[in-house]
Amino acid sequence: MADTREVAVGRTVTVTVPASSANLGPGFDTLGLAIGLYDEVEVEATDAGLDVTVSGEGEDEVPLDERHLVVRAVRAGLREAGVTVRGLKITCRNVIPHSRGLGSSAAAAVAGVVAASALAGDPTPERPAGALDDATVIQLAASFEGHPDNAAASVLGGGVVSWTNIPVDGRSAPEYRAVGVPVHEGVRATAIIPDFHASTEVVRRVLPSDVSHLDARFNVSRAALLPVALSRQPALLWEATRDRLHQPYRAEVLPVSSEWVNRLRNLDYPAFLSGAGPTVMVLSTEPVDPALLDEARGRGLRVLETAAGDRVRVTVTSS
Amino acid sequence: MADTREVAVGRTVTVTVPASSANLGPGFDTLGLAIGLYDEVEVEATDAGLDVTVSGEGEDEVPLDERHLVVRAVRAGLREAGVTVRGLKITCRNVIPHSRGLGSSAAAAVAGVVAASALAGDPTPERPAGALDDATVIQLAASFEGHPDNAAASVLGGGVVSWTNIPVDGRSAPEYRAVGVPVHEGVRATAIIPDFHASTEVVRRVLPSDVSHLDARFNVSRAALLPVALSRQPALLWEATRDRLHQPYRAEVLPVSSEWVNRLRNLDYPAFLSGAGPTVMVLSTEPVDPALLDEARGRGLRVLETAAGDRVRVTVTSS
Repeated sequence: MADTREVAVGRTVTVTVPASSANLGPGFDTLGLAIGLYDEVEVEATDAGLDVTVSGEGEDEVPLDERHLVVRAVRAGLREAGVTVRGLKITCRNVIPHSRGLGSSAAAAVAGVVAASALAGDPTPERPAGALDDATVIQLAASFEGHPDNAAASVLGGGVVSWTNIPVDGRSAPEYRAVGVPVHEGVRATAIIPDFHASTEVVRRVLPSDVSHLDARFNVSRAALLPVALSRQPALLWEATRDRLHQPYRAEVLPVSSEWVNRLRNLDYPAFLSGAGPTVMVLSTEPVDPALLDEARGRGLRVLETAAGDRVRVTVTSS
Repeated sequence: MADTREVAVGRTVTVTVPASSANLGPGFDTLGLAIGLYDEVEVEATDAGLDVTVSGEGEDEVPLDERHLVVRAVRAGLREAGVTVRGLKITCRNVIPHSRGLGSSAAAAVAGVVAASALAGDPTPERPAGALDDATVIQLAASFEGHPDNAAASVLGGGVVSWTNIPVDGRSAPEYRAVGVPVHEGVRATAIIPDFHASTEVVRRVLPSDVSHLDARFNVSRAALLPVALSRQPALLWEATRDRLHQPYRAEVLPVSSEWVNRLRNLDYPAFLSGAGPTVMVLSTEPVDPALLDEARGRGLRVLETAAGDRVRVTVTSS
C-alpha cells in the first residue's frame, strides 16, 4: 500500500457534532434538522492500542472496544482517507440522549468519520471536515444507519433534504445524498423527551408495506412544502409537518409521544415525532407555553428549548 | 342584496395568463410551474347578454355560452367580489394547447376569476388581481379542477408547492392552498407536445389505489428536493424529477410520451410527463440537443423552447 500514509503519533483532533431530528413529520427518511445540542469527541493518534472513554449520556451502556460506533466510524474514515494509525485514544463527552430520536448514533458516526478526516488532513474553509469532503462524510456516516437524514443534518447543520439510491445490481452500496436547507432565523426547536428508549428497528416494524395513493400524495405535498416553510415561511410549519406515512402507525407503540404530538398540534404548535421517537419536537417561531412544558416536566418528560444546530466542527488541537 | 354593486357598463379588463406544468415528476397534485406561453382574455361589462369569441387554440371546440369555462369563472369571481354585471363581452385569444397537460383549463379559470376581480376593483401593487387577493383567486380557480397545482402556478407565476385540505364534514368545499417557489434564472423549460389530446380523467383512472411504502417515501424525498433544486441547485433537477407514483402507471396509456421521457432522462435531461400528459417537459439549464428536437418534430411532435412563466397580469383597458 504505497500511498497509505501514517498519521503522526500525538496528532489530536476535537469534533463538536450536533444532535438531529429526522422526518420532521412528512419527510420519512428524507428531511432532517440539526438540533442545538452537541456531543464532543476527541481523537488522538497514539503509539499503540485502543483506549476509549465515554462520559455523559450512555457512559455505562456502550462497549468500550472496536464495537463502539465512534471507533468503527474512525476506522472507516481512516480507510477512506487512505491513512493509518498505530493506536487510538478516543474520549467522548456525550450530551445527546441515546435512543430517543435525537440522532445520537448518526452524531457518533459523523464524529468518528470527521475525526478521521481531520487526522488525515487539516480542515480548511473549503473542506471544513479535513481530508474528506462533506459528501463523502455523509456517505460513510449514513452507511452505518441505512438512511442519510440524521447523518446529513449533523454534517451540514440546519435543515437537509436527503435521498438514497439503491443500485440495481443488488451488490453495490446504497448511495446517500443530501442538500442543505437554510433555516429561518426565528425558528425555535423545542424537544420534549420521554424517559425511555425506543428502538428504531422496533418502531419501523409497525409500518405497513403499502399505503393508499391518497396518503402518499398527502405526504408528498407536505414534504415539498417543508423546505419552503423552514427557510422562508415558518407560519406554514404546522401544515408542512402533517404526516400520514409513519406517525399514525407508531401512535399505538408510542402512546405518550402520540398524546403530546396531538395535544400540541391541537393548540396550533407544529409538533411531530422526532425520528422514530419517543422525543416530540416542536418547530415554531412562538415559544411553547411554559405551563405546558412544566406539565410535561411534572410527568417525567425532559424539556429542551433550543434552535437549529450548527454543522459539525473539527479542530486540530495537537499536530 | 344591499351591498351588491353593479360594474359600470363599458368597463373592460385584459388578462394575460400563463400555461403551467403540474406534478414535475414526483409532486403529484402538488408541484406546479408556470410556463412562458400566454393566453389573453378581454372582458367587458356590457348592457345586456353574453357574447363570447374565441380565436386560436380550441376555437372550434369550446361552447360559446354559459358553459364556457372562462364565463363560469367570471361568474364565480363576480359573485365572490360581490358585484354584478348587466351583460358580458368576452374575447379569448388562446395560445395554450388544449388537453395536452399544459394547464389550459386552469389558465382559463384563472383568467375568468382575475377578470372578474379587476372588473370589481382596480389592481394595485399589493393586490395585483384587483378586488380579490391571490389566495382567493387560487381557491376559486382550483375549485373548477379539484387540484390547485396548475391554477396556483398560473396565478403566482414561477414554481409553486400546493396542497388541499378536505374538510371532514364531507360537505364544505375543499381548501386549496399554495406558496410560490422562485425559479433559478438559468432554468429553461422545453415542451415536447404530441399531436393528440389526453383526458385528465382517463389518465387518472390508471393510477392504483395503493402503492408501496417504499415508493411513497421515494417520491416524498424527490418532491422535497424539487423546490430546492428549482430555486438554488438546478444541477439536482434530474434527481428531483424522479417519480414512482404516477408516470410508471401512465406509460402504458401514453407510450409515445413515455418513450420520450425515458429517452431524454437516459441522456441526463430532467424530463417528465407534464401534468397528465401527453406533453413531455424538460427543466434544465442546458438546452436540449437540437438534433433530438428536430427528430421529435419529424415525428409530428411540436417543440416549444421557453422558460418559467410570469404571474397572471390584468390591466383595466377602459373604466
